[in-house]
Amino acid sequence: MKAIVFDGQLRFSRNHPVPEPGDGEALVKVCLAGICNTDLEIIKGYMRFQGVIGHEFVGVVEKTWENQRLFIGKRVVGDINCGCGACLYCKAGLQRHCPSRTTLGIAGKNGAMAEYITLPVHNLFLVPENVKNEEAVFVEPLAAAYEILEQIHLRPTDRVLVLGDGKLGLLVALVLDLCGPEVALAGKHEDKLAIARGQGVCTVALESLTGDKAFDIVVDATGSPKGLEAALRFVKPRGTIVLKTTAAEGITMNLAPVVVNEVKIIGSRCGPFGPALMCLAQKRIKVGPLISGVYGFSHAGEAFTKAQDKRSLKVLIDFSK
Amino acid sequence: MKAIVFDGQLRFSRNHPVPEPGDGEALVKVCLAGICNTDLEIIKGYMRFQGVIGHEFVGVVEKTWENQRLFIGKRVVGDINCGCGACLYCKAGLQRHCPSRTTLGIAGKNGAMAEYITLPVHNLFLVPENVKNEEAVFVEPLAAAYEILEQIHLRPTDRVLVLGDGKLGLLVALVLDLCGPEVALAGKHEDKLAIARGQGVCTVALESLTGDKAFDIVVDATGSPKGLEAALRFVKPRGTIVLKTTAAEGITMNLAPVVVNEVKIIGSRCGPFGPALMCLAQKRIKVGPLISGVYGFSHAGEAFTKAQDKRSLKVLIDFSK
Repeated sequence: MKAIVFDGQLRFSRNHPVPEPGDGEALVKVCLAGICNTDLEIIKGYMRFQGVIGHEFVGVVEKTWENQRLFIGKRVVGDINCGCGACLYCKAGLQRHCPSRTTLGIAGKNGAMAEYITLPVHNLFLVPENVKNEEAVFVEPLAAAYEILEQIHLRPTDRVLVLGDGKLGLLVALVLDLCGPEVALAGKHEDKLAIARGQGVCTVALESLTGDKAFDIVVDATGSPKGLEAALRFVKPRGTIVLKTTAAEGITMNLAPVVVNEVKIIGSRCGPFGPALMCLAQKRIKVGPLISGVYGFSHAGEAFTKAQDKRSLKVLIDFSK
Repeated sequence: MKAIVFDGQLRFSRNHPVPEPGDGEALVKVCLAGICNTDLEIIKGYMRFQGVIGHEFVGVVEKTWENQRLFIGKRVVGDINCGCGACLYCKAGLQRHCPSRTTLGIAGKNGAMAEYITLPVHNLFLVPENVKNEEAVFVEPLAAAYEILEQIHLRPTDRVLVLGDGKLGLLVALVLDLCGPEVALAGKHEDKLAIARGQGVCTVALESLTGDKAFDIVVDATGSPKGLEAALRFVKPRGTIVLKTTAAEGITMNLAPVVVNEVKIIGSRCGPFGPALMCLAQKRIKVGPLISGVYGFSHAGEAFTKAQDKRSLKVLIDFSK
């Protein structure tokens, strides 16, 4: 089958073996896969992952373990973390923190940039009919935006700042803005900011951003290791920084201001698929404007070049082509 | 008057001017002052403070603004943060986060290592009769330990790890242990660990500490910029790290594990004096064993040498001598 593999180099294979579903798993034929910044970091060495990359997808179930008919032939998206099912995290519905989990295309499990993937049936979510493939492929990053609402209490009176107008920054700003508080999105790209502004978010060019220590909540979605330092500049004493950035490289910094101002920093990763699917089904936000290009597999190399361009947002790969 | 001044160099002056209390302030004659690690960091350049250093003290009120008789002649300790009284933080009782605050011996206000200091009357707390000076001088760091209980919810089932067997680490372990959960204190000095062990805390040599990702709450009281990395090793996914370390130097690190494991990091600084005084009055913990030496002002140089010795705990300076 067609597959995009990282083994120290990025390779576009046409004869990768089709995976066999294990116990409890489904075989899913991938329609569309998205390129995430994490994929670009993995290519730089993040997580030391080797194998088929990719974790954002929408596909159709071809077969399931013991032929559970509910899903066969249906369009699905899927939670990318596969837990053991038995530990305290899994029992608490937090398989995404299971210590022995695998993660699709990130750790211990071949990923979604391929014609076929396998995933546990209970990771799958049916895609409502009124959600197109080009929208459904955003469910995974949109769930990561919703994770913030699982983790912190957003008050109606909170002043919220989202740093970074990349794919995740835009989704985070759009989702938090639905909740009522005053949300500002700061970034470097006027055309990207305009996408959020078009849906009601206040936006500001990063270079003109004022308001040192003025925000109750600052989300670092810059994707840069320097994002935390910027967040510390704008967060109020006793305020909260939500950290979304994962990067291959580290940075030198002094955390004394965190202690002095008693700032709370919360790491935030994958989130709940249900609210993300609901958001798309109810047309509460529009993800279409975030698509910078859709490429067939035969042009996947160009897709990666496009995705690496700082001016791009989401680049999709169509595995049917 | 006698005073210990940092102006780029540490100086022991005998003719420093006695301060004049301003509006709302009291003049306090210092009995004992404690040397804190923050003082040692200030001498290395932390906070770029210059002036009389020191912020841990017990003293006797000599005069007060408009002669408020309640305090005159009484033994007191004092909150070291002086707020404007008008901002939202001050109005919420959080003058220690007032953006225009001064902090005794740390920022914008001469400190406690002197025969006399001034502090706003409303910063003062009367010392109960059954609390000796050698105990009362611990109220400020003990309040910093209590601050953790103001900030996070400690569940009876939580596994708590305190990293660092210095002065603050010991006080934190002793205070948290009073609350019921299982507290382990890890450090490098068997004789220091023994002080906490003698009061019921489980202790372990840092080098023998096991339990990667096993603790719900990890307090970094190492005083080392490397403490956070160690805390990240031992905290559970979705667990909490309380950061107490402030240091003059920074460190290079990658915060991706914070994001991946959705760890919460909470900076924690000064705390409430009331509970700390109550704790001492009720003899709930013994601070006496933490005293490594009491020096008269004429031996203050030796006191600093002693305090800088890694084997020492609290060193006190007696300004009556």
